[in-house]
Amino acid sequence: MEGRYRTGAAAVRGRVVASGPTLRAVSEIRYEVVPIGHVASPLRNRADAPRQGDEGAPPAWLVIEPRFAEAIRDLRVGDRLVVLTWLDRADRDVLSTRPRDDPDRPVVGVFSTRSPDRPNPIGLHRVQVLEIDGLRILVDELEALDGTPILDVKPVLDPLEER
Amino acid sequence: MEGRYRTGAAAVRGRVVASGPTLRAVSEIRYEVVPIGHVASPLRNRADAPRQGDEGAPPAWLVIEPRFAEAIRDLRVGDRLVVLTWLDRADRDVLSTRPRDDPDRPVVGVFSTRSPDRPNPIGLHRVQVLEIDGLRILVDELEALDGTPILDVKPVLDPLEER
Repeated sequence: MEGRYRTGAAAVRGRVVASGPTLRAVSEIRYEVVPIGHVASPLRNRADAPRQGDEGAPPAWLVIEPRFAEAIRDLRVGDRLVVLTWLDRADRDVLSTRPRDDPDRPVVGVFSTRSPDRPNPIGLHRVQVLEIDGLRILVDELEALDGTPILDVKPVLDPLEER
Repeated sequence: MEGRYRTGAAAVRGRVVASGPTLRAVSEIRYEVVPIGHVASPLRNRADAPRQGDEGAPPAWLVIEPRFAEAIRDLRVGDRLVVLTWLDRADRDVLSTRPRDDPDRPVVGVFSTRSPDRPNPIGLHRVQVLEIDGLRILVDELEALDGTPILDVKPVLDPLEER
């Protein structure tokens, strides 16, 4: 990683209240994420959305901000990607919930669920690229709602699958 | 998702400069992530770290903040998890790079790579739980450096694997 890494707080964009890796310091740190684009989808509200992308989600467009064009320049039709989104309609105060809102299931800690309601509501979505039109990337199945901010796009790693 | 979702800006903790899903509005929004814990690992610097967890990474502890204890209460030894980290030593201005810093490879856009240097340096790590000791969770292979903030923990979804 020679030369690509800076050390210490200089590389951090977030509001850093304390910089050490001690337990106390970490609890006071906040970082800022910036949307690199947003989802354009026919899904407009939670009632329309499936729980996961392979449960009937429609194709959707990833609409990338112009200033991140360089970062998508090598994406191609057929690429398998992991899209990270910011689930901006989630409740960040929820620490335990019923999976899939099923009243027959017991309440469990959110880190044992895929509920969007969690301290940092980051969505993971596996998709395949169907079409690329400039800054717009059509993907096959995405359960995120229209307007959902996109944080990152990563290639799927084979043969060990997703990490 | 009845009742779990709030609508609009009330649910958003981030500094929201504009709230609409239009292209211009999204580009001005920032969100704040909060570490839910940190990694305790023998890996102290990039020179020691493998590129991916299955390339020789050691076991590491996920040290969870006390206020998130409720969220981990149902994690068990043997669970397969996706850990999301904030790669706080990454360079967020990099939009294209050489994969694995290999001089024989061409420069490609970062969204076609797993480089930590990217606009939102969120790491994805697939791990299995080896031991749980209160707020500390030992996992089998984690390439993140000691002190790396943890943003989220999610169960791996089977049989369709990671999403």
